Amino acid sequence: MQDYRPSREDKFTFGLWTVGNPGRDPFGEPTRKPLSAPYIVQKLAELGAYGVNLHDNDLVPIDASAQERDRLVREFRQALSDHGLVVPMATTNLFTDPAFKDGAFTSADARVRAYALQKVMHSMDLGAELGATTYVFWGGREGTEVDAGGKLLDALSWFRDSLNFLAQYSQDQGYGYRFALEPKPNEPRGDIFLPTVGSALGFIATLDQPDLFGLNPEFAHETMAGLSFPHAVAQALDAGKLFHIDLNDQKPGRFDQDLRFGAENLKGAFFTVQLLEEGGYDGPRHFDAHALRTEDEAGVWAFARGCMRTYLILREKAEQFRADPEIQAALAAYRVEDAELAELTGKFSRENAQALKSRTFDREALGRRGPGLEHLDQLTLELLLGLRSPVQGAPSARIEARG
Amino acid sequence: MQDYRPSREDKFTFGLWTVGNPGRDPFGEPTRKPLSAPYIVQKLAELGAYGVNLHDNDLVPIDASAQERDRLVREFRQALSDHGLVVPMATTNLFTDPAFKDGAFTSADARVRAYALQKVMHSMDLGAELGATTYVFWGGREGTEVDAGGKLLDALSWFRDSLNFLAQYSQDQGYGYRFALEPKPNEPRGDIFLPTVGSALGFIATLDQPDLFGLNPEFAHETMAGLSFPHAVAQALDAGKLFHIDLNDQKPGRFDQDLRFGAENLKGAFFTVQLLEEGGYDGPRHFDAHALRTEDEAGVWAFARGCMRTYLILREKAEQFRADPEIQAALAAYRVEDAELAELTGKFSRENAQALKSRTFDREALGRRGPGLEHLDQLTLELLLGLRSPVQGAPSARIEARG
Amino acid sequence: MQDYRPSREDKFTFGLWTVGNPGRDPFGEPTRKPLSAPYIVQKLAELGAYGVNLHDNDLVPIDASAQERDRLVREFRQALSDHGLVVPMATTNLFTDPAFKDGAFTSADARVRAYALQKVMHSMDLGAELGATTYVFWGGREGTEVDAGGKLLDALSWFRDSLNFLAQYSQDQGYGYRFALEPKPNEPRGDIFLPTVGSALGFIATLDQPDLFGLNPEFAHETMAGLSFPHAVAQALDAGKLFHIDLNDQKPGRFDQDLRFGAENLKGAFFTVQLLEEGGYDGPRHFDAHALRTEDEAGVWAFARGCMRTYLILREKAEQFRADPEIQAALAAYRVEDAELAELTGKFSRENAQALKSRTFDREALGRRGPGLEHLDQLTLELLLGLRSPVQGAPSARIEARG
Amino acid sequence: MQDYRPSREDKFTFGLWTVGNPGRDPFGEPTRKPLSAPYIVQKLAELGAYGVNLHDNDLVPIDASAQERDRLVREFRQALSDHGLVVPMATTNLFTDPAFKDGAFTSADARVRAYALQKVMHSMDLGAELGATTYVFWGGREGTEVDAGGKLLDALSWFRDSLNFLAQYSQDQGYGYRFALEPKPNEPRGDIFLPTVGSALGFIATLDQPDLFGLNPEFAHETMAGLSFPHAVAQALDAGKLFHIDLNDQKPGRFDQDLRFGAENLKGAFFTVQLLEEGGYDGPRHFDAHALRTEDEAGVWAFARGCMRTYLILREKAEQFRADPEIQAALAAYRVEDAELAELTGKFSRENAQALKSRTFDREALGRRGPGLEHLDQLTLELLLGLRSPVQGAPSARIEARG
Repeated sequence: MQDYRPSREDKFTFGLWTVGNPGRDPFGEPTRKPLSAPYIVQKLAELGAYGVNLHDNDLVPIDASAQERDRLVREFRQALSDHGLVVPMATTNLFTDPAFKDGAFTSADARVRAYALQKVMHSMDLGAELGATTYVFWGGREGTEVDAGGKLLDALSWFRDSLNFLAQYSQDQGYGYRFALEPKPNEPRGDIFLPTVGSALGFIATLDQPDLFGLNPEFAHETMAGLSFPHAVAQALDAGKLFHIDLNDQKPGRFDQDLRFGAENLKGAFFTVQLLEEGGYDGPRHFDAHALRTEDEAGVWAFARGCMRTYLILREKAEQFRADPEIQAALAAYRVEDAELAELTGKFSRENAQALKSRTFDREALGRRGPGLEHLDQLTLELLLGLRSPVQGAPSARIEARG
Repeated sequence: MQDYRPSREDKFTFGLWTVGNPGRDPFGEPTRKPLSAPYIVQKLAELGAYGVNLHDNDLVPIDASAQERDRLVREFRQALSDHGLVVPMATTNLFTDPAFKDGAFTSADARVRAYALQKVMHSMDLGAELGATTYVFWGGREGTEVDAGGKLLDALSWFRDSLNFLAQYSQDQGYGYRFALEPKPNEPRGDIFLPTVGSALGFIATLDQPDLFGLNPEFAHETMAGLSFPHAVAQALDAGKLFHIDLNDQKPGRFDQDLRFGAENLKGAFFTVQLLEEGGYDGPRHFDAHALRTEDEAGVWAFARGCMRTYLILREKAEQFRADPEIQAALAAYRVEDAELAELTGKFSRENAQALKSRTFDREALGRRGPGLEHLDQLTLELLLGLRSPVQGAPSARIEARG
Repeated sequence: MQDYRPSREDKFTFGLWTVGNPGRDPFGEPTRKPLSAPYIVQKLAELGAYGVNLHDNDLVPIDASAQERDRLVREFRQALSDHGLVVPMATTNLFTDPAFKDGAFTSADARVRAYALQKVMHSMDLGAELGATTYVFWGGREGTEVDAGGKLLDALSWFRDSLNFLAQYSQDQGYGYRFALEPKPNEPRGDIFLPTVGSALGFIATLDQPDLFGLNPEFAHETMAGLSFPHAVAQALDAGKLFHIDLNDQKPGRFDQDLRFGAENLKGAFFTVQLLEEGGYDGPRHFDAHALRTEDEAGVWAFARGCMRTYLILREKAEQFRADPEIQAALAAYRVEDAELAELTGKFSRENAQALKSRTFDREALGRRGPGLEHLDQLTLELLLGLRSPVQGAPSARIEARG
Repeated sequence: MQDYRPSREDKFTFGLWTVGNPGRDPFGEPTRKPLSAPYIVQKLAELGAYGVNLHDNDLVPIDASAQERDRLVREFRQALSDHGLVVPMATTNLFTDPAFKDGAFTSADARVRAYALQKVMHSMDLGAELGATTYVFWGGREGTEVDAGGKLLDALSWFRDSLNFLAQYSQDQGYGYRFALEPKPNEPRGDIFLPTVGSALGFIATLDQPDLFGLNPEFAHETMAGLSFPHAVAQALDAGKLFHIDLNDQKPGRFDQDLRFGAENLKGAFFTVQLLEEGGYDGPRHFDAHALRTEDEAGVWAFARGCMRTYLILREKAEQFRADPEIQAALAAYRVEDAELAELTGKFSRENAQALKSRTFDREALGRRGPGLEHLDQLTLELLLGLRSPVQGAPSARIEARG
């Protein structure tokens, strides 16, 4: 049996704010002490992580002096260097300070919108200094509770203007960032703009430079709206827009839980891993989660180890799935191909259309056919439960990547 | 006091399947007799509707002979002509027949996919014959319960290929359709592809001819996922993609209820009407809902009248909102403009960026300012409750359209 | 038109923690300064409230000295006396301190359970000193995220033991409290014990002195689970267990929003007011809500005024509903009585049963009858929208109380 | 490795309506042919089931003649006898016929209420004839969409009167039934009365003979409201009210899916099995689920086999959980006992209360302690994933029952 110890090659990352989460919630005070950034770096390195991500204010307090900033950045870089960790992604805290209480890019106050732009530029400078190549936008405060304010259409314009401006800033500075939008349906706002992966994909199509923008889908966020995370990841992959990913877990229809990856929805986690491993994604596997508020520091590291172990276990199970003859037979039986029809439907022509229109289909037979999905699902479940013996000599090569 | 009687100019439409719904549900048999299409046309005309929409099989049974089809279409057209109703929108039933049980465009069976294409082409012919200019795609069966089937990425490709093919068919035939995708998160499938308005917007960006495609958002569908329908409508308007609209109501987080417009979420209905009236939408206001299963035929027409009355009442309230000085003062106070900052942030230049970066913002002051949203929301609520006296001489002109 | 100014007789109450909420949330720092208890008392009195409720630590910090406690209590009582407010309800903060992170009465740590008992006894002493007659238990931390802990059955025993103990303490001290359980489905815990009004009713039946215990249902809490608050209130009234009530508002299926009463679900608010006014409830109408985080102090008072105004408006509409002839006719038509059947079904006897079993019912006719619910619902909606002229001379007497 | 073949001793049951479900849904026609009751009995017996449950109209059409009824019952009893299956539970269809469209026991039409009583008595006769000892009430139509109807309080009275009457009928006939209420939050009605397990427990406390009534909790129903099924089962066990159980699966916050047991929420299924096996429940394990609509008859039997296999697998894992030293050590570490405090808090006395009030607790230490729940949860997850080697010689005895 494998030991499921992560290595740098697995590209596991955590945010400073994740393992550093002190366990405060709307009804309770922190249960854990803050951890310094260098200490987090050291611990994550010991656990086998690849990198660490951050908001500007995870490292540098919003009211820090220039001197303090430089010291903090220097110590952090030293720790990264000492322990061999990288910073693949950076982002901006546009939600903690009361200035952003009614939005940052979409505040009804033009001064807040301008201040948000300023803050992001400074934060992009910091990210670039730390080597980040992906820059994430989570618009946690971009939203409303009171739609009577009448800003729904303006807000989307302001949001777009800000992203267009910042993309040019990145280019002008030569930062080379790819930007990843992170959708969320609600919390802390009643309704957040760009609530789902799809909303962000749709919005990107309206930007000046859509190629620079992609997605940072988060398992918990899509799940809060009761949507399927694997389906959302598939749409992002299909559009060539999976720029980054936030792995965690969540029960549908409730507050943002940020649970340990795999803790709640095991099948969703499995299909997510399967898509990432087989769908051509080669970026970091970022765990945007935190230990339960009940836990002490030991619980934090148990949490972090658990995220990575579960990913590795599920990756192994995805390999086993590909190698399992009974499962592969069920998959083959599920799909019906037809070369002649493929020809007719593959490309529109008047002739193809007419040929197709005049063809006779055996509707009843099509409706009668059993696709064997209950059988396939049960096989998959039993594979997850460890009841299907791993096949010797299973091909370890990944399925060829796509799009 | 107005009488809120609809006229043709209000562009209210219903589907044959809406007022014709017989009250069957998963646990019960129909409670109402089927109504013939000509009878529905006559009744809707009496009630003041503008048009009627249909799926192919609402009018023509799936197994009808050519002769029967022709008779049904002829009688329907006669009724339309007699009563002055139009058919602005048509669509295909790709969900009732068992052949589509695992999807139509996204079935794992290539024969079903081809049959779906064929069925849509015939249905597009019918729609064009009836004068429809908008063609809707609701992919009710396009989805999965068993993601182990491994078709998530293929399904999006198949879906795209089908839409591309059908757009060319429409052009080739000179039908001039605009296509409107109608998203839904689940039911009847566990997870439906393109679950939200955003997902459809994102998908359109990947089509060959994105300009031909837009949205048909439905109040109930977005609400099932707990998402804000006004927010979704705003995103569709912002993208220039609001091609059609399905008005009804729904409680979040449960089965598809298709309630009478305004029956559940009065504020959501109000902000939707406000957006439609002021956001430049000039298409039909389609009610995709049905009377409760408890009702007899009299209840069906009470339901239909109620949908239209509520719309007209809310439209009047939207006008009152624009004319109410206290509300307008609260709105003005909510927004802070700043000409100098508008200059700096309006267009990226290195100079603007540097000027913005070096500017000092009074963060504390920005956080202290009260936007007055509780006050504004209470004013709005009291306006809805009929407690703010209608202002005489309020301007009736609509705000200039956008998008 | 009425001015909807509340008076003491309306029995409106707020918690110190509601108007005193500083606008902190999981992603942001407070946006408002703390308000002292005496100041809150003064302001609520000005606004027309009847009373103010509190957790122990809303008034007395958890680490206050005895001297500090006495001073704070004295100043608070002075303010109550100066402004004519009462304290009808008190409760304990068993959720803020890290000690309670895994539960209070249901912690797996016996010391925490004992400390919780101690804290409640001290808090009951404080409540009694302030004149409270209702004591509320909201078990915000009583729950789990990790059911592997295996305490589900033990937790219910521990919870019961604690409530039994504290009921005896109250009696022994002569406090005369009635105890009101406040259910909530989740947040801050993944799953909270006694998640719904029904769960609490069911649990009360297992207590030693069930008559001392009733419910404090909260609109937002029941709504978080997508359940109907009016239905829950009706069940509590039916069981004679509506001891207190928490009015606010909420969107289903998301984080705890504690919105202004009526802000979201206007029909739910209306039916709740109708039940309270006509169902025999004569306790305080407590608003357990807070101003949006966007607001400054002026917004807080706008919020508080709004809660009370909306209640008064809806109370007036409930009176109008009872006096509206068309609505009353629709209600009368909805109900079918049958004296002979009432006789047979009213009380079991072998003869009645046999007579009933052999009777012939016209099943088809029963299924055909239209109850007119779409019509009635539309009338109600239009009444809410202010479109039905108030009837002169409508009887103002409340319907005879029940339960 | 076990073969997980069920035997009669496992007490697995299915309803005629579950494996017999023809795959009709709100948007589609049936995909499978009806199966006769005797054929279902034969097939279930072959698969290893213990029994089969039914609604009256699963076996006998609502309009059957007395002769037809007798023939159907005779053939069914013959099949039961031939194949060694029992009928542990029976129930009434009070939801399919249009007569019940606005409720059965809670219809606003007194004739419908009387007809419902009649129908249940006849159905109880049938159940008794078949040997059923548990009688289930699922009030699928008992609810509202239009609360303006004003029947919320009356409905609970009518419901109670009906249950009281029927309990007496059972006694008078000597049927010896135990009655099990099955709650559901919504669908087919907008809001169903007694929406959760707790609501039913609370309602039972208001009945004339509460001892005769208990619960039939269903996994999917509680999950639809986003509530924890294991928590609900625990409350029913705690109250001594777990009379029957409906096992299946469901995604939260959507239409009633009735998925194969374990198909969606593996941890929820595991903790449910653990509670049933260790909590003293010895009744049938009833699968109230159906094959996906995509499936043919082979899929139906794959579905049925899968339900039972998954239960057996999880039962084995529950045994492994009890025998796993590392898990048991984590559980032991989680709990802190204290004999002295147990003495003080165990039973109220003035002295105990005073001693407890004056005791000093180290609040900070209590808050600091890490309960190790992330660690325990990860161990549990890995056990489910089959990664912890089964311990030889693990005690197979069940933990002593309670309740």
